[in-house]
Amino acid sequence: MDGGKCTVTVISHERGENLICSKGSTLMDVFHKGNIYIDAPCGGKGICGKCKVIILRGQVSEISQDESRYLSDKERAEGYRLACMTKVIGDVEVAVKSYVEGAQIMSTGIEYSVDISPRINKRFVQLDLPTVEDQRDDLNRLTAAVGMEEAPDITIELMRELPGLIRDSNYKLTLVYDGNGVLNVEKGDTTGHLYGVAIDIGTTTVVCYLMDLKTGHQVDTISGLNAQRPYGGDVISRIQYAMENEDGLAGLRRGIVDQISGLIKELAHRNNISLDYIYNVVIAGNTIMGHLFMGVTPQHIASTPFTPVLTQGVVYPAHELGLKLGKATRIFMLPHISGYVGADVVAGILAAGLDRGDDLSLIIDIGTNGEIVLGNRDRMVCCSTAAGPAFEGANIRHGMGGIRGAINTIRLENGELKYTTIGDEAPIGICGSGIVDALASLLDVGLVDETGRLLEEDEIESDLGRGLSHRLVELDGQGAFVLVDAKSSSTGDSILITQKDIREIQLAKAAIAAGIKVLIQRMGKKVEDVAMLYLAGGFGSYIDKRNAARIGLIPQELQDRIIPIGNGAGTGAMLSLLSAEEFVRAGYISDMAEYVELSSALEFQDEYVNAMYFSP
Amino acid sequence: MDGGKCTVTVISHERGENLICSKGSTLMDVFHKGNIYIDAPCGGKGICGKCKVIILRGQVSEISQDESRYLSDKERAEGYRLACMTKVIGDVEVAVKSYVEGAQIMSTGIEYSVDISPRINKRFVQLDLPTVEDQRDDLNRLTAAVGMEEAPDITIELMRELPGLIRDSNYKLTLVYDGNGVLNVEKGDTTGHLYGVAIDIGTTTVVCYLMDLKTGHQVDTISGLNAQRPYGGDVISRIQYAMENEDGLAGLRRGIVDQISGLIKELAHRNNISLDYIYNVVIAGNTIMGHLFMGVTPQHIASTPFTPVLTQGVVYPAHELGLKLGKATRIFMLPHISGYVGADVVAGILAAGLDRGDDLSLIIDIGTNGEIVLGNRDRMVCCSTAAGPAFEGANIRHGMGGIRGAINTIRLENGELKYTTIGDEAPIGICGSGIVDALASLLDVGLVDETGRLLEEDEIESDLGRGLSHRLVELDGQGAFVLVDAKSSSTGDSILITQKDIREIQLAKAAIAAGIKVLIQRMGKKVEDVAMLYLAGGFGSYIDKRNAARIGLIPQELQDRIIPIGNGAGTGAMLSLLSAEEFVRAGYISDMAEYVELSSALEFQDEYVNAMYFSP
Repeated sequence: MDGGKCTVTVISHERGENLICSKGSTLMDVFHKGNIYIDAPCGGKGICGKCKVIILRGQVSEISQDESRYLSDKERAEGYRLACMTKVIGDVEVAVKSYVEGAQIMSTGIEYSVDISPRINKRFVQLDLPTVEDQRDDLNRLTAAVGMEEAPDITIELMRELPGLIRDSNYKLTLVYDGNGVLNVEKGDTTGHLYGVAIDIGTTTVVCYLMDLKTGHQVDTISGLNAQRPYGGDVISRIQYAMENEDGLAGLRRGIVDQISGLIKELAHRNNISLDYIYNVVIAGNTIMGHLFMGVTPQHIASTPFTPVLTQGVVYPAHELGLKLGKATRIFMLPHISGYVGADVVAGILAAGLDRGDDLSLIIDIGTNGEIVLGNRDRMVCCSTAAGPAFEGANIRHGMGGIRGAINTIRLENGELKYTTIGDEAPIGICGSGIVDALASLLDVGLVDETGRLLEEDEIESDLGRGLSHRLVELDGQGAFVLVDAKSSSTGDSILITQKDIREIQLAKAAIAAGIKVLIQRMGKKVEDVAMLYLAGGFGSYIDKRNAARIGLIPQELQDRIIPIGNGAGTGAMLSLLSAEEFVRAGYISDMAEYVELSSALEFQDEYVNAMYFSP
Repeated sequence: MDGGKCTVTVISHERGENLICSKGSTLMDVFHKGNIYIDAPCGGKGICGKCKVIILRGQVSEISQDESRYLSDKERAEGYRLACMTKVIGDVEVAVKSYVEGAQIMSTGIEYSVDISPRINKRFVQLDLPTVEDQRDDLNRLTAAVGMEEAPDITIELMRELPGLIRDSNYKLTLVYDGNGVLNVEKGDTTGHLYGVAIDIGTTTVVCYLMDLKTGHQVDTISGLNAQRPYGGDVISRIQYAMENEDGLAGLRRGIVDQISGLIKELAHRNNISLDYIYNVVIAGNTIMGHLFMGVTPQHIASTPFTPVLTQGVVYPAHELGLKLGKATRIFMLPHISGYVGADVVAGILAAGLDRGDDLSLIIDIGTNGEIVLGNRDRMVCCSTAAGPAFEGANIRHGMGGIRGAINTIRLENGELKYTTIGDEAPIGICGSGIVDALASLLDVGLVDETGRLLEEDEIESDLGRGLSHRLVELDGQGAFVLVDAKSSSTGDSILITQKDIREIQLAKAAIAAGIKVLIQRMGKKVEDVAMLYLAGGFGSYIDKRNAARIGLIPQELQDRIIPIGNGAGTGAMLSLLSAEEFVRAGYISDMAEYVELSSALEFQDEYVNAMYFSP
């Protein structure tokens, strides 16, 4: 079967392209080599069933029993296959559903203001012409004109170009500088062109914000699924990939670095901006994303005692990190706090201004892990709970991210469940806020008891519950609740909440609730002392506050003190981009925040068990 | 004649090797391509007659009339030819006289002491093992152990190696650091190995001093003729070469950079030191040598208003400047003062300690130019006189550098001239100190009058003069004085001082004497106020102080205040190598020294004319 070459024609919303591959390659491999990224949280191991594609034409391997478990009859009839399990035998035409375009990226829900003073800035100077009386050297003439006293850092390449630049421009130049470094010298007055990009490297999604650093305006935004996703949906599977494969770390690094180069190039191109005018790039991401982006092994974060190689904020020329950007472009890596509390959280703290206020505030960022920060200007404690990505839809039978077609709200109305979807499209699955609503509703109507058990029909006590009991079904030996029946769903299959889904949510919410309690105890405070609860992430913006409290994800006392801050990581990165002081502030935050390791905190075990129940 | 390939076998004191070349190439070209450097101050233009070689065997182009003017009958009989004018026609065996081995390098004549604290230093640390309670990242653990507070500068390559280095060495490491930069991390305790090289890049000679930076001891020294010499004996001809030839600047840069890489490698090899343990390299050289070494064009120094590209002290990783040394090796370029007062002079000021004393002192460095500095801790003025390299033997018929076979002292004894040579060898020519002695003697006996004219036999008034008048000859229509007759010289030719030689010396000494006067006037001082006169260079060590005053090179009043400081540039470079503070001090000196441009100083013209005469 192996040996020959085939053409795979890929059709998606954004593009159609032909990829050449060897016979016998899986479609997933072909996509990776062609830099096409589709959702595959399990890393292509054939266990998540998310990498569905449609074979429009051509020869592929026969469907196996394993694969068919993930596909409904309707899907199979329509030509759906899993990319990770389908091998190419002849020329193939395949349709890929792009999730990228539909991703909803939140910007901050709180106001922030900052003086615009980017770390890399520029200044126009008109130099005095040298005379016999004024024989100052070129470099001195230049740096004295902008008030630098010492010899600046300047690359040897730029030093060699300097005399030509000065004379060719008739002594009228723009200096691009960073502290005591002169990063570039441009002919004439180019001070009107000063851009930067703030980047949030999420485990799932990468978002780039192009900013005009003269005005502070956000010029454009671009996003994509993290190019490393095919190698694992969560950080641990990526670390495993890096450790278990020769060139694994380098491959992950290349994936994200090339993706970011490409996204920035696209931003520059479609806004008619020269890449050379993008000088500042600030990166926020969790500690593992940060390590992988730099090509630094995150392997020691994976096992006890969970030590990163670095948490400090560092700066490198873009080309040294392998990015194909301007020669003066610098990459500013925001600092992390610990192996599992990363720069994304630091950026969120910046955005929420936790380090500036006297009031005690909480930040909860529920993503792949659940990171929690409690503090104010005087003290800050934080932790990471192994909450798992249930609230992002992972490990949930019909779970999905907050993208088009996801059920995002559910409410009881006249004894019936009503739902809405993102983009008002036919429902495909359910995202985090929808899951919280669903579970709260099931608890309210008495279909789920306080231990989290989905009741049998004959155990149901309330009328409301009995009215919905026709939706209870059995599936693979466990109970399940039909949210959307087959005929209403986009996929032709019912959308269910299973007993296992409820257990996933139960474990996740318990971890977060226990984490909050531990931090409050460590501070010697009570829940009532917490003035604000900042909820980061898209999830935080859509979530029903009452329902979140109902399922015990957040304390009842705080449900009216919730402020969604959207993409806190992105906002914090933008702040650091606009103002060098914010980058310094991030360093202070990283230094002052005390990391609490929950796995060795005795009180966490108790709180975790207590938080497992759904109180009435 | 062109087209085919020939083999040129080169035989010298150090080596014999075969070079392949095209028919029709000049021997000079063949040597350059083979990295063999022979003395050719004119840059191979066929006008200095210094590039003599002996053709032992094989076919070369016939001797032209131009070429034969530079060769005596005896030389022609022995097979001497000029390398720049002799073309290869068939396979050739050629003997090259190496001047390198015989170069006498002076070390300082004054005592100096300095605390040993090199800019790049190292420290052994044993790190605490990480625990669940101490999850500090690798970098933080490392830098906290040596008391650094901020995230250090560290290359991305080293960052990537860090976790492996730390664990492979069982948390026992040596940090190589420079200020807030961690340049390298070595496994185990390597603190016993810390070396540096101080380098004096002279226009003529390159000298490298290998220093043990733990003890401050000078381990070894190596020197060679500057590899750029074939492209011109003086700085102006090298600038011309750089400007007039495509790849000229790059070629000059490569020549000196490769030479210095090679010399350092040789030093390391023969002292059994790993190249990786040589971290600090300090470079002193004049402004043009500094520019060429960095690959920065010196062209704007050549014409008014003589602006260098940089005069500041700068630091670059060795590999960025193209040197093949350790990855942690840094090149420290000492600062210059102006286009014609370079880092060699700054280093000389360091060595003489001019900036530390209250006494007003002079430094005179008579080399290719004559640089003069006057000052003390409060104020410093300096200038460069276009004295020409006469005192180094250039433009003097039988002049030569201070190497073996050079006449270095001459004295009158019982009415006869007695001379000594360096190395007590048969005389080849005459070096600077010998020329001063010769001229002083001719003035004393009345063979040269106060206008510098070599008298005719019938004009001589003194008995001593008449006793030596048999040595007066006529040559090419001008008078000359025979110092050594043909049978006593090593070359078989008489060694002469010609009227033209006397004029060269006269112009040179007048320029220096006038420069001294101008500086003293600028300071508002008198000659008597000068407490010390430091004479730099080998010339300064051999010179007869009375005779230097006799010919008017230095003021009579100062002849007993002369202190030779030998190779001040080398000594200053060594000081800067041993102590980071000295490098900083060099920066202060460069900032405080006021450069006086003599070409636009009206008073210089007057003094120059006045100083032309030889006062009795």
